[in-house]
Amino acid sequence: MGCSDAHATLATDVLVKADMRGIDSHGVARLSGYVRLWEAGRINATPDIRVVHQTPSTATIDGDGGLGLVVAPFAMQVAIEKAQAVGSGWVSVKNSNHFGIGAYHALMAVEKDMVGISMTNASPLVAPTNSKERLLGTNPMCFAIPGGKYPPVVSDMATSAAANGKLEIAQRLNKSIPQGWVQDKDGQASTDPNELKKGGALLPLGSMEEAGHKGYALASVVDIFSAVLSGANYGPWVPPFVSFLPLAPDMPGQGIGHFLGAMRVDGFRPLEEYNTHIENWIERFKSSPAIEGQTVLIPGEPETFEYANRLIGGIPLTEAVINDLTELGNKMGIAF
Amino acid sequence: MGCSDAHATLATDVLVKADMRGIDSHGVARLSGYVRLWEAGRINATPDIRVVHQTPSTATIDGDGGLGLVVAPFAMQVAIEKAQAVGSGWVSVKNSNHFGIGAYHALMAVEKDMVGISMTNASPLVAPTNSKERLLGTNPMCFAIPGGKYPPVVSDMATSAAANGKLEIAQRLNKSIPQGWVQDKDGQASTDPNELKKGGALLPLGSMEEAGHKGYALASVVDIFSAVLSGANYGPWVPPFVSFLPLAPDMPGQGIGHFLGAMRVDGFRPLEEYNTHIENWIERFKSSPAIEGQTVLIPGEPETFEYANRLIGGIPLTEAVINDLTELGNKMGIAF
Repeated sequence: MGCSDAHATLATDVLVKADMRGIDSHGVARLSGYVRLWEAGRINATPDIRVVHQTPSTATIDGDGGLGLVVAPFAMQVAIEKAQAVGSGWVSVKNSNHFGIGAYHALMAVEKDMVGISMTNASPLVAPTNSKERLLGTNPMCFAIPGGKYPPVVSDMATSAAANGKLEIAQRLNKSIPQGWVQDKDGQASTDPNELKKGGALLPLGSMEEAGHKGYALASVVDIFSAVLSGANYGPWVPPFVSFLPLAPDMPGQGIGHFLGAMRVDGFRPLEEYNTHIENWIERFKSSPAIEGQTVLIPGEPETFEYANRLIGGIPLTEAVINDLTELGNKMGIAF
Repeated sequence: MGCSDAHATLATDVLVKADMRGIDSHGVARLSGYVRLWEAGRINATPDIRVVHQTPSTATIDGDGGLGLVVAPFAMQVAIEKAQAVGSGWVSVKNSNHFGIGAYHALMAVEKDMVGISMTNASPLVAPTNSKERLLGTNPMCFAIPGGKYPPVVSDMATSAAANGKLEIAQRLNKSIPQGWVQDKDGQASTDPNELKKGGALLPLGSMEEAGHKGYALASVVDIFSAVLSGANYGPWVPPFVSFLPLAPDMPGQGIGHFLGAMRVDGFRPLEEYNTHIENWIERFKSSPAIEGQTVLIPGEPETFEYANRLIGGIPLTEAVINDLTELGNKMGIAF
């Protein structure tokens, strides 16, 4: 695509780490999607990513239309440097694209004994509570917290009840989905995994418990932190990830938006003291009595487990992904 | 109780504002609960609240066992001053007590054209996903965001599927509750509002949509930010709000913990630019087509509406609350 070696290497690392963590939907399977966006002129392969506004602990970054896979780590690096200088750093990003898994960026802070936070807005698929219209993305929110001698505690979640990937799996298996994941075009409950193609919408987290307003509110916070603070597009104007969908008319901002943060643990208490207590927290939760036949997990434990597993066993790729990558390699003149 | 006039006035303001916003469960109805904690020696009426650790943008505050209603505004004031100096301020608090509604503290930042964030841990009522044990509080998370010429956008929510207050209402009406709010002592689904008294637990947000791990993860983030960063108690050791329950043995920290943050909007972009876009955001979401018979609301709008309503019509108090306050007044020698 014309990316620098450094950018290509970094973007590859973000995609492969997603696969390593078992988040197959956000790994190399998405590579051809990014390339199609570049072909459509919606990704700049040689961006000039830069800080356009700042204070000692905050900044706004213009991603210059670059790959989110490259823009977000740049922004997190700025947040980390600000945290090193004044205790914490918070960066809102405009003019970017899909940033892969939130955990990759948040975990950059953990390596420096900092709490890492990452969020991004995304193309509109989710209806606000009581609305028929898709106005919000699955807007994920990630918190990565140093775990002392244990792996970090990582909360990385879409603020919708279910990710679109779960619907796609049900579509392939021709199965219905649980109530509370989607609504139809009139806003009525549905268990049809094809509802989004018929004008329906994903539902916010909590919808089935009469608490969908909570998921809606969290998704709104992600949208505003990522785009209204920075100058990116928000709500219905967020550019779609798929290149065959048109951009919305009258876009109020530039590209999609992210929000990244880093806080030094020793900005609050000495690191050794913190480590003793986070280790105690993890041990206490892990030793909680499980419901029969179940296991109590620490947030992030499934991904840590999968990472260790795939480090040895490799990343299983589906036939479809292998074909897609082969085709892409042929087109770009790269042997696969 | 021996509070200073300033502390008594501030605590009163926090409680009355909760009632004004329609959050009756956290208003003056709780006053006698705070007094009972003081009688049990669990609240210090004359605390020396102080910063014990800091960087330019972070701090840890020791609440000295004071009323959370007073400690949290002190901490938010520190966060605001740090934001004025370096763009953002983040304060973790130990040795505090129940802080009332999160929105009170977060909205202090909005008055200064800042985003405000507040969280607190709370006595264990919620079971982690797959666990039979109550290890987390309803651990609320509040984000308050300046709305330009409109009221602020406020997301103020428990990270459990339902608040305990909703169970109490069902108990009084002798009605069953929706699936997904509680589990019984063995971790099985239940619709009995009395389940908590029989060893059951509240469920995390998202439980009914196979997404309870999301609520569990968010509640964990609140617990760690509030208590592991600061040195307060976490998980099963968080002191109960009701004075008749004993403290847990071997508590690893001091009191309960909070986490407060403030970020200057103009730390990211000029305020006028921001205002134009947040107003556009609000207008666009508010004008979204509603499901038949419903209304699309902006996060925080119900509380803003109730505030305006009660400013004119007053705060409706139940007979039980009036009796409770009268009794309390008699005991403390204050005419009611």
